[in-house]
Amino acid sequence: MFVNRMPRYEILSEDSMATLDRGWRRIVSEIGVEFMKPEAVELFRAAGQEVDGNNVKFDPDWVLAQVAKAPREFDIQARNHANDVHIGGDHMVFSSVYGPPFVRDGAVRREATLDDYRRFAKLAQSFSAMDSVGGVVAEPNDAPLDSRHLDMLYATMTLTDKIYMGNVVTGGNARDTIAMSEILHGGRESIEQTPACISLINCNSPLRWDDRMLDAQFEYSAANQPVVLTPFLLMGAMSPVTVPAALVQQIAEALTGIALSQLIRPGAPVVFGSFLSNIDMQSGSPQFGTPESAVGLLCTGQIARHFGLPFRAGGGLNSSQVPDAQAAWESLMTMLPTFLAGTNFVMHTAGWLEGGLVSCFEKYVMDVQVLELLQKEFTPLEITDEDLAFEAHVEVGHGGHFLGAMHTMERFRTCFYRPFLSSSDNFERWTRNGAKDTAARATEIYRKTLDEYEQPPLDETVRSELEDYVLRRRAELGD
Amino acid sequence: MFVNRMPRYEILSEDSMATLDRGWRRIVSEIGVEFMKPEAVELFRAAGQEVDGNNVKFDPDWVLAQVAKAPREFDIQARNHANDVHIGGDHMVFSSVYGPPFVRDGAVRREATLDDYRRFAKLAQSFSAMDSVGGVVAEPNDAPLDSRHLDMLYATMTLTDKIYMGNVVTGGNARDTIAMSEILHGGRESIEQTPACISLINCNSPLRWDDRMLDAQFEYSAANQPVVLTPFLLMGAMSPVTVPAALVQQIAEALTGIALSQLIRPGAPVVFGSFLSNIDMQSGSPQFGTPESAVGLLCTGQIARHFGLPFRAGGGLNSSQVPDAQAAWESLMTMLPTFLAGTNFVMHTAGWLEGGLVSCFEKYVMDVQVLELLQKEFTPLEITDEDLAFEAHVEVGHGGHFLGAMHTMERFRTCFYRPFLSSSDNFERWTRNGAKDTAARATEIYRKTLDEYEQPPLDETVRSELEDYVLRRRAELGD
Repeated sequence: MFVNRMPRYEILSEDSMATLDRGWRRIVSEIGVEFMKPEAVELFRAAGQEVDGNNVKFDPDWVLAQVAKAPREFDIQARNHANDVHIGGDHMVFSSVYGPPFVRDGAVRREATLDDYRRFAKLAQSFSAMDSVGGVVAEPNDAPLDSRHLDMLYATMTLTDKIYMGNVVTGGNARDTIAMSEILHGGRESIEQTPACISLINCNSPLRWDDRMLDAQFEYSAANQPVVLTPFLLMGAMSPVTVPAALVQQIAEALTGIALSQLIRPGAPVVFGSFLSNIDMQSGSPQFGTPESAVGLLCTGQIARHFGLPFRAGGGLNSSQVPDAQAAWESLMTMLPTFLAGTNFVMHTAGWLEGGLVSCFEKYVMDVQVLELLQKEFTPLEITDEDLAFEAHVEVGHGGHFLGAMHTMERFRTCFYRPFLSSSDNFERWTRNGAKDTAARATEIYRKTLDEYEQPPLDETVRSELEDYVLRRRAELGD
Repeated sequence: MFVNRMPRYEILSEDSMATLDRGWRRIVSEIGVEFMKPEAVELFRAAGQEVDGNNVKFDPDWVLAQVAKAPREFDIQARNHANDVHIGGDHMVFSSVYGPPFVRDGAVRREATLDDYRRFAKLAQSFSAMDSVGGVVAEPNDAPLDSRHLDMLYATMTLTDKIYMGNVVTGGNARDTIAMSEILHGGRESIEQTPACISLINCNSPLRWDDRMLDAQFEYSAANQPVVLTPFLLMGAMSPVTVPAALVQQIAEALTGIALSQLIRPGAPVVFGSFLSNIDMQSGSPQFGTPESAVGLLCTGQIARHFGLPFRAGGGLNSSQVPDAQAAWESLMTMLPTFLAGTNFVMHTAGWLEGGLVSCFEKYVMDVQVLELLQKEFTPLEITDEDLAFEAHVEVGHGGHFLGAMHTMERFRTCFYRPFLSSSDNFERWTRNGAKDTAARATEIYRKTLDEYEQPPLDETVRSELEDYVLRRRAELGD
């Protein structure tokens, strides 16, 4: 997995951080945050917080005391331990797009299916830069609604040996995720000791945590499985239009959600979540890869470190309808700050198109390409006297070239990162090869990758136990 | 013009900088740098440096003493003083692509013409984020070879009222640039007091400055017009394959070129130039937007500041054959570090395609779009208690939305940067509007921009004097 040992790019002054600190304290103490689940409210009441119906007003210092119980860093185990990940510190974990109901495959845009889900799982397994297929990489609309989480989990667990995300649609779905994780990892003890999945708990921003999400959070935190407490902020809609206001709202929502996890199980692993962009104030459409979202992301990293928490942000976000130039620059406008901020958990790394409505096969390949470029870029440069290659200059002389120099010959295979999708062919050669643009080349690569995909081995007893679980639960759910 | 008041992203430790310092000192003193112009060599000999034929071995401390004579910052005047620029400090000046013999206009790729040149000049004039059309925005292949610099200068001076770059093909061309600048700016005194053009002097790397470039440098520095001394480094060909080696070579070449300008005219304005990328070691093709070039760019900024010099680097560089996803991400892989490094003079900001062989109209518009996004992103965030919008939360409440909040209504016109090329239309609306990808929309925008272009007013006496100069010189040059 990737470890980002480059410097963090920090833009908040101490004064600014103090202003933001005053801001979230005032929100949680004077306005409060709603929790639409009586058990959550009861936990807060018992802990001495001021409760009025679903609304909880907090003592900010109490919130910080709860936050301090959360681990600063933790591991998640994969069934192939070579793919275990570490969340926090300088580590960055990359997960695929999450949630789209549609897919784009070349010129075709249509409803996503379970087969699409499986194909994306295979891509996630195939590309070593990707740590996870994630959770709902594409919504399997052709699978029965109440039990499709089982189909997705089964696909992920059998087609990949990397970490995965838990289902959060209901508390029952969370219990199924945990039960199947127990089967995959040899029992409850194993996954309580080292978590096996990570789950996205979104806030119904502003300032409200909904019942279904909380049901899932209760299950996961009780089982010591990490949750990513994520304010869902499109500035102008779910938060005010100024970045500082969005940042303090984000802190208020994330920290109170994290405090709840610590009440459910002190020491439960959590991630400070951020999904922060803005709408177009004329059309109301969500926009991604915006300057405001990039600035918000850089600040978010600094804020999470201020609270000693691992954080989630960023990804290959964009608003484009097709995997074209806009899709590429908006995605990188988000991904480069994702690296500059040292983001610990990155959802939506690959595949995101059309504001998150579409999982795109070509875009998946493009995003992996850019991910590899960034992983190379954010690997610290070694500078020793030997790297200065003085002898090569002596050998080559003035106005010569270094193609055949000894220094070059010794290093030419590994000296530069070599892209697998980008083309630097000259125009004649490129034309001769069919004049394929990036998207057309990406189609070829994703198909070839699927052709060459090899299913990772899985103990047949475990596989059949998983299958039995799916069949039994599907029957119970009436699908 | 844009002033970048965000922090610099610096990745070189003091130890690394000291290693690089040892490196360039060893190159200039033990190997030396060739200057293919006797007058240059003679100046160095007279100043006590060790001369052997065209090769000069330097006392590094003497080089630094020369470098110290150069101004840290300086102005360049435009004929419309609203478009004057400042080179150095936190200022960033953006100039168009420079040098391509071909153009791409939609699906057509062909040799560039003088008409193309004029159309790019009009685009540069029209987009306020662009500070200059630059120099050879596209090579006017249909204009007579020996006098086409006159056509380009006349087009730039009459179609734009922004700063421009001087011609460097011969010393005579440089004299023509200076003479026409004198006409445009009311005489020699004006342009010696505040320079009117900036010129690119490329090194024939490794370690050789060629006669034609030096001829031009002599003219410009003698006339107090700034020169950008630029090592031309594609690692693996013109420099060793390790970034540290390229960096020390870059320092050795740039500083010795700068020392020459200070001998020609002490205090002459100079820019530490960088054009640094790598070749594909398998095909030999130049590659752009690479991780290695981005790292080199970040280091270059830090190095230039170490020597107290304004610097040139970056741009919208890419290897792509068409303005597609790869073109976009490679360009941003260069432009975002360009901003992070606080680059003072940015050539190739807009229009660059196909490794610099092609000026592309669509790409020009895309690059201006991304430039605007970055200028917004690199504008420091204000964080006051008022920006936290506490009252908006009181107004909106839990689970509400901010679309109609007073805080939003007061700010909705200006709160977010609104892109002119990107689309966040939903799929149905986008389809209804013709399902145009970014390149197709860019075509429409560049054509509309040209349709709406208005020529900036120019005193008729000046214009006719420029025209007379062009006619007279063209006749003298035999074209």
